[in-house]
Amino acid sequence: MITGNYIGPDNPDYSEKFHEACGVFGIYSNEDDIDVVRLTYFGLYALQHRGQQSCGIAVSQNGHITGHKGLGLVSEVFTEKILDRLEGKIAVGHTRYSTTGGASVEDCQPLIVRYKDGQLAIAHNGNLINASKIRLDFENRGAIFQTSSDSEIIANLISRFGLQYKNFEQVLIETTKTIEGSYAVVIMTGNKLVGIRDPWGLRPLCIGKMGNSYILTSESCALNAIGAEFVRDVEPGEIVIIEEGTLRSIRTDQDKPHSLCIFEHIYFARPDSFIDGASIYQSRLEAGKLLAVQHPVEADLVAGVPDSGITAAIGFSRQSGIPYGEVLIKNRYVGRTFIQPTQRIREQSVNIKLNTLKFEVEGKRIVIIDDSIVRGTTTKKIVRMLKEAGAKEVHVRISSPPVKFPCYFGIDIATKEYLIAANNSIEEIREIIGADSIGFLSVENLLKCPIGAPKDSFCTACLTGRYPMKVPAEMDETLENK
Amino acid sequence: MITGNYIGPDNPDYSEKFHEACGVFGIYSNEDDIDVVRLTYFGLYALQHRGQQSCGIAVSQNGHITGHKGLGLVSEVFTEKILDRLEGKIAVGHTRYSTTGGASVEDCQPLIVRYKDGQLAIAHNGNLINASKIRLDFENRGAIFQTSSDSEIIANLISRFGLQYKNFEQVLIETTKTIEGSYAVVIMTGNKLVGIRDPWGLRPLCIGKMGNSYILTSESCALNAIGAEFVRDVEPGEIVIIEEGTLRSIRTDQDKPHSLCIFEHIYFARPDSFIDGASIYQSRLEAGKLLAVQHPVEADLVAGVPDSGITAAIGFSRQSGIPYGEVLIKNRYVGRTFIQPTQRIREQSVNIKLNTLKFEVEGKRIVIIDDSIVRGTTTKKIVRMLKEAGAKEVHVRISSPPVKFPCYFGIDIATKEYLIAANNSIEEIREIIGADSIGFLSVENLLKCPIGAPKDSFCTACLTGRYPMKVPAEMDETLENK
Amino acid sequence: MITGNYIGPDNPDYSEKFHEACGVFGIYSNEDDIDVVRLTYFGLYALQHRGQQSCGIAVSQNGHITGHKGLGLVSEVFTEKILDRLEGKIAVGHTRYSTTGGASVEDCQPLIVRYKDGQLAIAHNGNLINASKIRLDFENRGAIFQTSSDSEIIANLISRFGLQYKNFEQVLIETTKTIEGSYAVVIMTGNKLVGIRDPWGLRPLCIGKMGNSYILTSESCALNAIGAEFVRDVEPGEIVIIEEGTLRSIRTDQDKPHSLCIFEHIYFARPDSFIDGASIYQSRLEAGKLLAVQHPVEADLVAGVPDSGITAAIGFSRQSGIPYGEVLIKNRYVGRTFIQPTQRIREQSVNIKLNTLKFEVEGKRIVIIDDSIVRGTTTKKIVRMLKEAGAKEVHVRISSPPVKFPCYFGIDIATKEYLIAANNSIEEIREIIGADSIGFLSVENLLKCPIGAPKDSFCTACLTGRYPMKVPAEMDETLENK
Amino acid sequence: MITGNYIGPDNPDYSEKFHEACGVFGIYSNEDDIDVVRLTYFGLYALQHRGQQSCGIAVSQNGHITGHKGLGLVSEVFTEKILDRLEGKIAVGHTRYSTTGGASVEDCQPLIVRYKDGQLAIAHNGNLINASKIRLDFENRGAIFQTSSDSEIIANLISRFGLQYKNFEQVLIETTKTIEGSYAVVIMTGNKLVGIRDPWGLRPLCIGKMGNSYILTSESCALNAIGAEFVRDVEPGEIVIIEEGTLRSIRTDQDKPHSLCIFEHIYFARPDSFIDGASIYQSRLEAGKLLAVQHPVEADLVAGVPDSGITAAIGFSRQSGIPYGEVLIKNRYVGRTFIQPTQRIREQSVNIKLNTLKFEVEGKRIVIIDDSIVRGTTTKKIVRMLKEAGAKEVHVRISSPPVKFPCYFGIDIATKEYLIAANNSIEEIREIIGADSIGFLSVENLLKCPIGAPKDSFCTACLTGRYPMKVPAEMDETLENK
Repeated sequence: MITGNYIGPDNPDYSEKFHEACGVFGIYSNEDDIDVVRLTYFGLYALQHRGQQSCGIAVSQNGHITGHKGLGLVSEVFTEKILDRLEGKIAVGHTRYSTTGGASVEDCQPLIVRYKDGQLAIAHNGNLINASKIRLDFENRGAIFQTSSDSEIIANLISRFGLQYKNFEQVLIETTKTIEGSYAVVIMTGNKLVGIRDPWGLRPLCIGKMGNSYILTSESCALNAIGAEFVRDVEPGEIVIIEEGTLRSIRTDQDKPHSLCIFEHIYFARPDSFIDGASIYQSRLEAGKLLAVQHPVEADLVAGVPDSGITAAIGFSRQSGIPYGEVLIKNRYVGRTFIQPTQRIREQSVNIKLNTLKFEVEGKRIVIIDDSIVRGTTTKKIVRMLKEAGAKEVHVRISSPPVKFPCYFGIDIATKEYLIAANNSIEEIREIIGADSIGFLSVENLLKCPIGAPKDSFCTACLTGRYPMKVPAEMDETLENK
Repeated sequence: MITGNYIGPDNPDYSEKFHEACGVFGIYSNEDDIDVVRLTYFGLYALQHRGQQSCGIAVSQNGHITGHKGLGLVSEVFTEKILDRLEGKIAVGHTRYSTTGGASVEDCQPLIVRYKDGQLAIAHNGNLINASKIRLDFENRGAIFQTSSDSEIIANLISRFGLQYKNFEQVLIETTKTIEGSYAVVIMTGNKLVGIRDPWGLRPLCIGKMGNSYILTSESCALNAIGAEFVRDVEPGEIVIIEEGTLRSIRTDQDKPHSLCIFEHIYFARPDSFIDGASIYQSRLEAGKLLAVQHPVEADLVAGVPDSGITAAIGFSRQSGIPYGEVLIKNRYVGRTFIQPTQRIREQSVNIKLNTLKFEVEGKRIVIIDDSIVRGTTTKKIVRMLKEAGAKEVHVRISSPPVKFPCYFGIDIATKEYLIAANNSIEEIREIIGADSIGFLSVENLLKCPIGAPKDSFCTACLTGRYPMKVPAEMDETLENK
Repeated sequence: MITGNYIGPDNPDYSEKFHEACGVFGIYSNEDDIDVVRLTYFGLYALQHRGQQSCGIAVSQNGHITGHKGLGLVSEVFTEKILDRLEGKIAVGHTRYSTTGGASVEDCQPLIVRYKDGQLAIAHNGNLINASKIRLDFENRGAIFQTSSDSEIIANLISRFGLQYKNFEQVLIETTKTIEGSYAVVIMTGNKLVGIRDPWGLRPLCIGKMGNSYILTSESCALNAIGAEFVRDVEPGEIVIIEEGTLRSIRTDQDKPHSLCIFEHIYFARPDSFIDGASIYQSRLEAGKLLAVQHPVEADLVAGVPDSGITAAIGFSRQSGIPYGEVLIKNRYVGRTFIQPTQRIREQSVNIKLNTLKFEVEGKRIVIIDDSIVRGTTTKKIVRMLKEAGAKEVHVRISSPPVKFPCYFGIDIATKEYLIAANNSIEEIREIIGADSIGFLSVENLLKCPIGAPKDSFCTACLTGRYPMKVPAEMDETLENK
Repeated sequence: MITGNYIGPDNPDYSEKFHEACGVFGIYSNEDDIDVVRLTYFGLYALQHRGQQSCGIAVSQNGHITGHKGLGLVSEVFTEKILDRLEGKIAVGHTRYSTTGGASVEDCQPLIVRYKDGQLAIAHNGNLINASKIRLDFENRGAIFQTSSDSEIIANLISRFGLQYKNFEQVLIETTKTIEGSYAVVIMTGNKLVGIRDPWGLRPLCIGKMGNSYILTSESCALNAIGAEFVRDVEPGEIVIIEEGTLRSIRTDQDKPHSLCIFEHIYFARPDSFIDGASIYQSRLEAGKLLAVQHPVEADLVAGVPDSGITAAIGFSRQSGIPYGEVLIKNRYVGRTFIQPTQRIREQSVNIKLNTLKFEVEGKRIVIIDDSIVRGTTTKKIVRMLKEAGAKEVHVRISSPPVKFPCYFGIDIATKEYLIAANNSIEEIREIIGADSIGFLSVENLLKCPIGAPKDSFCTACLTGRYPMKVPAEMDETLENK
């Protein structure tokens, strides 16, 4: 579901489902033969699906922090020459989500700042719901802001609390007490690497090890990419500090209900990642299986919308016994620089991104699985394409519940207005998209999928309206007025 | 198998399996509202898998031909501004394969030349085995050559025969009589669009229609992409000429055995294409099924190497009843500009391109399917990765026979030396790659897969050594001496 | 002398004479048909000689400020598309000097910040000598800094004083009272354009008008470029505020001695500019004349080092009666991307940037004029080239006094160590560069050159060691320790 | 006059005076420590003024020729990486002129071809007037053409004559016998470097030496750039062949009148070059002197239009005794990517490229010198600017005669229609441009300027209509009908 992929790795209509997710990465080396900059570079490659708008790497060398960042994919922003220029023993990296709006250089991360006690580099994934309030408070005390990122707020807080508290740990604790919302943050000082996960654990963050060196990253797939071993997840409300070669942990606010964003399982995370003990791949398989139980249908073939619906489709097939197959081919070359067809050409049914596998579709009753529906326009198009390719029936099955409520914790589902499920009944949705039947996975079933994760440890606000924390009224208003 | 993908859409180790394939496209418009340049652009997007090294479009406007071409993907070579500059009613386009060697601007196609009777633009897929002989003959008569492309040879022949024959059709017939080897060629003059397929039909070429306008293209998927309907394949030895809005056909040499390159079915073509009456997708499914019959194995899971082994894996699963699943995740962002890990980092087991789905692999007996093995290095790596992820057994199944002989018709299998199957027994291969068992599809079974295609209508030279035509001795020698 | 030209418009060896200068530009439009963004773009073209490292434009539209900036020349950073995206009625622009060190995106200007009272865009030329002190003070109160630019300090001060004073004018006054050093600043708020010049007038800033619209810019040549008329210089210690279509002025600290950097006349400014009433061109002509009086010599030809010595050479010729001519040709194409000759090739006397006009040199006694000598390496090379071209005698004349002291106000003469004149007597310099004679213009004579400027209104610190204000001790130390 | 400078090194309005000139360069190394590729790179930098549209380098390594070429300046087309890839002991390079029309990659030089006897690389400056005839002849014998360059014609001729004559020298002789027009050609085979100059010597070509290595180049300034010594000019009708370390010469057609294009002296060549024994700088100085004699005027200041009129202005001043000065400043940063002012802005008198030095102009009677007038629009603009800056009188002096006739030998003066002097009397021109007086140098005086060159050894066709050879009728017609 995530990210507004430029290259759209996971969802056919990236203009439909754009959300905010970011990837963070940090590495602290205790060994001479560890090239932290290149490992960060490869780690960001493995986190590219969490954000294709911009990326950056900051590195700390003898207490001095420098970096490079820019708009574009990791492959576009970094060259051999640039990597060679960055040297040090600690590094942090960031990949940033893409929205349709204008991307600005200022908002690229990691943010590097200088303050009383030296330099900081901060990379952040999440969304602070009291950002405006803190910002206003700072402005009222004379601060200036140069970006719209939460990282700048966190940097200001660290600096401010640094005046009150000598102890850096206390500074971090006070900072986390002040901010509300979702955050998985990686912070680098001249000689420390810090990871912080919000008390609800809304965004993922985990710890890896490579010899005696430590890694912090959004998803475990980045550990596999660089050949590091997974140690454990950072716990909700935990602060980990890596310094002088050892990792120590501070447990802050522990009484919040664990609330990992369920969309990490549905769409955001890479299937080869494990979050909070659960395999994303298994979770999606399971979702497909339960969907088959919940919304059975007689059909000849089960298929997934590439790539986001594939795994659930395999699960659906296994459970239902209906053969698994492929019905849509995705053109891997359609990316950011793709020149959109003109209206005239569009009317001539040009379809570059997806094509049907007519042979497999013709004369068959097809179950087509996708991970979620946001606006519904892509699903509608797919149903029409399958019918045109000769499908006798098209049964849409969605491996998550209807998205009905806005998210304030980092997913860009801005307003109800665009959510097909917020404004239509299930039957109306079926009619709009032209399917013969439709079925969504229930919230109850969805929560059974992340096997191995703590029970009831998920935020399902966008599906149920039950927010894990009180959302500021003005945020709601703002959204309504948009 | 093909293409030497920069981005490697179909095979995990693109440096292992690089082959020569190209995509050709031509469109002749009879209607004012047909934007031939943009349709060619979109058509090339659909043919990008046949070549990522360079591409180009030529367009004919009032008898005058201009064009634009360059090194890179379609998305890199063309901009809105460049497309706007190209105008006309006939267009041809080309995507070119990538080799590891240096790419030169001169070799980009379509080739545009001026000769006695005006201008020509030529786009070619295939390989002429008597190219050196013709070239030598021309040179001995004073001709100069500026490229290493067969298109330049064809242009010279058309020009030369144009001196002898007034009739353009006769010129084309004489040209095809002279050249030997594989060719699917699209030629544009000031007012004609011509398609030629070699008498063996080694390379694919088909005809599409869009209103009253005609399209010629390597694969039918390009017709779907632009919303055109498939009319029929160009037949082996057929010349089609589209002029003044109508298509006429000349059947030349009809007595050659139909010999479509079987690797179009195994690897080159997009699964949503149909060639000579057979669905590529069905063919690959069938290959998987027959492989399951031919090399059965007791296992817990069948999976394909993404993307090239996926379809056969589904077929294998259907036939064997062993559940289908995914065991490898491919990073879609690893492309041409990827900075290779240094040796030191490589030794730290960095693996950016592929990662295992540990959950699905652990403790299981895995059947892993790939479309083919050329050098074997990637397969070896995959087997190791699966074992490391906890696979109890790894059974390799290849949905095509061992590749043992060089190809002279456009696939870049240059020398036997690099072909693992040319130098090792099946058992030796198994040992080299470290699999618990290995099985290749037999030639006999392979030939059963392209359902709907004429019986025995395939070239299997690289598998059997039975070449459809006599290969010049010096070609063999050259290859041996390389 | 300034600028560290990438393209080296004014001095043959740009690696020898790099200095810090920037160009600032602001425009407030009261008319609908004034395209402030494009006029700023053209204005920056005219100020490109003041900085080639980076540039930027910010624009205010309905109180909201956006912008674009980047590393590179104006021609590289801006495209038609980018200019089209920027819209508004007030704009500020900046060109930044180049140092050999790494250029960072963060330091590009204008700096855009958000604070309690809205947004600000700031473009700055100069150097605050109490920057570290203010910075430290802010940090000690919790502020963070993201750049190394003085603009960020000014922005913080405006924000801080904005808490104390309701009146924006008072805020500006307090800000200028706090900062020490050289500054010519252009500030844009949502509805105002502000220009401030430091109380010594160290850096130039002038006012132009175009219909009813106002312009503020470093040099009057930018007014000519856009067809605006020169109104007057901003006075030392003056703040001008353009709001609701009218300009009002605040005179702050008026008791400082007017101290325009004399190097604006010697090297920085474009000859077609007028600063504080004096023509730069006339000033350089005059310097040449006085040099001829002060250091007469019998010779056959007077020539200037292109381009920085040309005007003084004309003056020298006029005064001395020795014919003026050209002896060196400068290759205009040698720029930033020039690939340096390898050591081996350099030894083969490759000389791409300059060549001698042998015909004019051979057998003659040449007077060669340059505007200044910093390290002396280029001058040495030129003397050798002229001798090799057959000059009978080479007499070096420098139209400014020896540079002996560091500058703290924006010229990058960092340490005495590199200043040939700080470490050698005149005679020693002559010997080092291999000239037959050498002569520098005296300070006394130099001060006579800017005809029309207020008497004794110049800073000559780098020549005399007499600094117009007390320089912080730690600054001195820092410099010594570098 | 030449070149249609993108960057306009020599003439203020590059859109006014675009002409065809190219720079050629070749080097044959006999020493191990000679890096022929980099020396060619530096040589092309010194020839960049002869063409900014495209450039290229070809290199011969063990008889095999490869190369790199592209659209753009030398600094844009070549990178360190590209230079590193090119290796060998013989190299040729080319810089190509720019026209306003579309530049095509195909037309970049050197042209590399393969023919019966191996490979050739050809770089050409000039224009063959019987190109169409030869081309037609080749086409009628079956040849195809891929470019519009004369190099392709020469390559075809060499290949064709290679069939008849075993001896390569004879092949070259026959080739030169066949082509008519202007040409200075550098040809590289696997083991030879060849230079050919047309029998009239219309285009320059000279020989240099560096240790035991030989260089051929359009202008001697390229020899200075790489530290080579000038040996002599290639003579009209001479072929020089460098092979196995020695240079031998063939004198062909010797009875043609030596006819170096006089515009090499007026505008094309760099002032530091010597052609056929004459210093370009001296020639321009002389032109200024004779102009002062021929068209004396009472005035206060003499100045040149930068850069093309500067040297003649110095000469005019020396002769007349009127002080020399500068009145116009040229913005060095206005290049190819400059975004043109919109019409609306243009009307607001935006003037980015040139500005007046008001101080020097005001109240004075100015003599302004330019090298030539083609269309007259720039001169008109300059006169107006000077008057607006307060000039009391503006006297235009042109250091060459009126251009009245088309050139068929490589200067892009296409049609009489655009030549102000072909359609107006001198007095009418004066009136059009708004000058107080105007004076052109007479042909007689012009021919006195190239001191040291053979007497009457110039083509003055564009000034006198006396063409050195018969121009094909169809060429005339073509031109008339354009």
